[in-house]
Amino acid sequence: MTRTPLAPQDAAPLDAPTGIRRAVRDVPAYPFTPTDAAIKLDQNENPYDFPERLKALAVARLMERPWNRYPDLHADELRRRIAALEDWDEHGVVVTPGSNVLIKLLTELAGIGQTVLTVNPTFSVYTLEAQLLGANLVQVALNDDFSLPVAGLLRELRTRPPGVLYITQPHAPTGHLDAQADVQTLLEAAHGWVVVIDEAYHQYSHSDFRSLVQAHPNALSLRTFSKAWSLAGVRAGYALAAPELAANIQKLVSAFTMNALTQAVLEVALEHPTYVHERVTEAVAERGRMLDALRDHPTCMALPSQANFFLLRTPDADAAYRHFLSRGIVVRRQDRLHLLAGCLRVAVGTPAENDAFLAAAADLR
Amino acid sequence: MTRTPLAPQDAAPLDAPTGIRRAVRDVPAYPFTPTDAAIKLDQNENPYDFPERLKALAVARLMERPWNRYPDLHADELRRRIAALEDWDEHGVVVTPGSNVLIKLLTELAGIGQTVLTVNPTFSVYTLEAQLLGANLVQVALNDDFSLPVAGLLRELRTRPPGVLYITQPHAPTGHLDAQADVQTLLEAAHGWVVVIDEAYHQYSHSDFRSLVQAHPNALSLRTFSKAWSLAGVRAGYALAAPELAANIQKLVSAFTMNALTQAVLEVALEHPTYVHERVTEAVAERGRMLDALRDHPTCMALPSQANFFLLRTPDADAAYRHFLSRGIVVRRQDRLHLLAGCLRVAVGTPAENDAFLAAAADLR
Repeated sequence: MTRTPLAPQDAAPLDAPTGIRRAVRDVPAYPFTPTDAAIKLDQNENPYDFPERLKALAVARLMERPWNRYPDLHADELRRRIAALEDWDEHGVVVTPGSNVLIKLLTELAGIGQTVLTVNPTFSVYTLEAQLLGANLVQVALNDDFSLPVAGLLRELRTRPPGVLYITQPHAPTGHLDAQADVQTLLEAAHGWVVVIDEAYHQYSHSDFRSLVQAHPNALSLRTFSKAWSLAGVRAGYALAAPELAANIQKLVSAFTMNALTQAVLEVALEHPTYVHERVTEAVAERGRMLDALRDHPTCMALPSQANFFLLRTPDADAAYRHFLSRGIVVRRQDRLHLLAGCLRVAVGTPAENDAFLAAAADLR
Repeated sequence: MTRTPLAPQDAAPLDAPTGIRRAVRDVPAYPFTPTDAAIKLDQNENPYDFPERLKALAVARLMERPWNRYPDLHADELRRRIAALEDWDEHGVVVTPGSNVLIKLLTELAGIGQTVLTVNPTFSVYTLEAQLLGANLVQVALNDDFSLPVAGLLRELRTRPPGVLYITQPHAPTGHLDAQADVQTLLEAAHGWVVVIDEAYHQYSHSDFRSLVQAHPNALSLRTFSKAWSLAGVRAGYALAAPELAANIQKLVSAFTMNALTQAVLEVALEHPTYVHERVTEAVAERGRMLDALRDHPTCMALPSQANFFLLRTPDADAAYRHFLSRGIVVRRQDRLHLLAGCLRVAVGTPAENDAFLAAAADLR
């Protein structure tokens, strides 16, 4: 893209394709620029590739399948296997190419012309899709300790026309995990709302909101293969919901959208899930080690986290970002977000990557 | 899905998740049920798999790449290669997991709360997304010879508030190709509309609307790897548009949605495109052979087509469908569509599959 989005005052010159909705024209492009660095701690990825042995199995399966045929319309076999993994009704599983797509579909389901309610700061895709799709976006500031602003959200749930509520457990980008009771309080007040509990990082917090979702037919849990499963490149996320809610989400899923390659890879992953547990265990231990090592830093403060990343509050986020980059480490700036002045978001890497990060941090003033 | 969509009068029982928009609740699920049959002529697929040698190359490339890392945000490298193939500005290419997804995004771009205009009959995804996303859907009946109803469309373009116009060249499900001049007439009247020329089957008609698209910044061409390229299972479709229009579509594309596996496969395909030409040449020749062979059928009429499928008008579509299925051949019923009473849609298969189809057709009364 070679130009910035049109400002409202010049949005419709005579030759412009004015059928484009104003909401789309007014939104800037997704704010991410890839940066070359030896150590990538900027996207909350699993630092380990999908195991080589499983890659070979997946590839052998790929070779046997036809690539010229449309895949399973709604990935039914994959949904059955995810249902078995999660001990969930297979009619309550919806799978898409990444949970970003599910967030779009959920905003289509219950946000267009309605309300999208979330906290601030929050995952940028919730707010982006709300803006693009013409929802009334309402954000309630997190408490200063990053916990859910329960009273503020209850007020909005009770006074706004319904729509969709997005909460993230553990929260991104803070890594904060809330008490189940607080989420339950919100769910009990959310009559007529679709409530999305995004559990992208739940393996790293040993948390699980499935029983709350099961008790509320308007709630759903979003999960992903991009983090603990080491499959961000393969693109798959899913929702767990009551069958009726899932059936309505499924109507919005583009037909044949889960490609045959991804379906085969996920089958192999689901048949050999033990690597996930090992990697999560290491990441949780490494997160503890990093937070400990940063405890006495003279100028920076590492904030506690239940995810595979944490926030580092620095005196000058731009200088700190450049300092790490000069050491071959890329992290993510979050310092422009509410409550996060000076903050960088740092993914937990391999032990060697984390050592490099800690060495660089020790030199940061 | 175990139940039919709620009828309006019982759409909101007390315990229903009423945040779900009415438009979604009222739409039934995508109408496709896979059928087991030895010869699949029901989805307009290429009957040949991606060449074995290229599969092996693609798989070797997959093994070398990390699966744990997010793919290229907007598939920039792939977009560059498609731009080179199509002799198009790389900033004017948008790629998604199948062109079904692009149709959703284009309806988001210019259809929500606006008008979606198309013909009747038409590709079901245009009308489905219009209904799901809350567009005002307007369909103008095709002429009896399946040509574009130019006068009727001009009337709608001039009197409706703008939105998006979908036309298909060659048309699906009829296989009819219109004169460029007719499409140009529509484009010249479509001020303020986004005009989508879906060219999914253009290789089989030796037609190409790029020069018209190039002359109209509000027009775009949709193309796919699912047909001529033998890659329906891999999921990729793309739009060719002016850079400003493409930049606005791109905002709606979910981040990282083109998975790393598909990107690697498409790179290999684009480096070795000669198989496409060979297969298209055979399909066009086979289409001619089939239409010739059916010319003197006592009860059925095969309708001319410029695509990799054709319509067979039968005295009784249900009986004909079951007749072919009893011979191990699955085709697609289209007899409930406007103008298509009695019609089955038949994809062109391999010569042996086509022989089997013709033998079964010869026994059909």
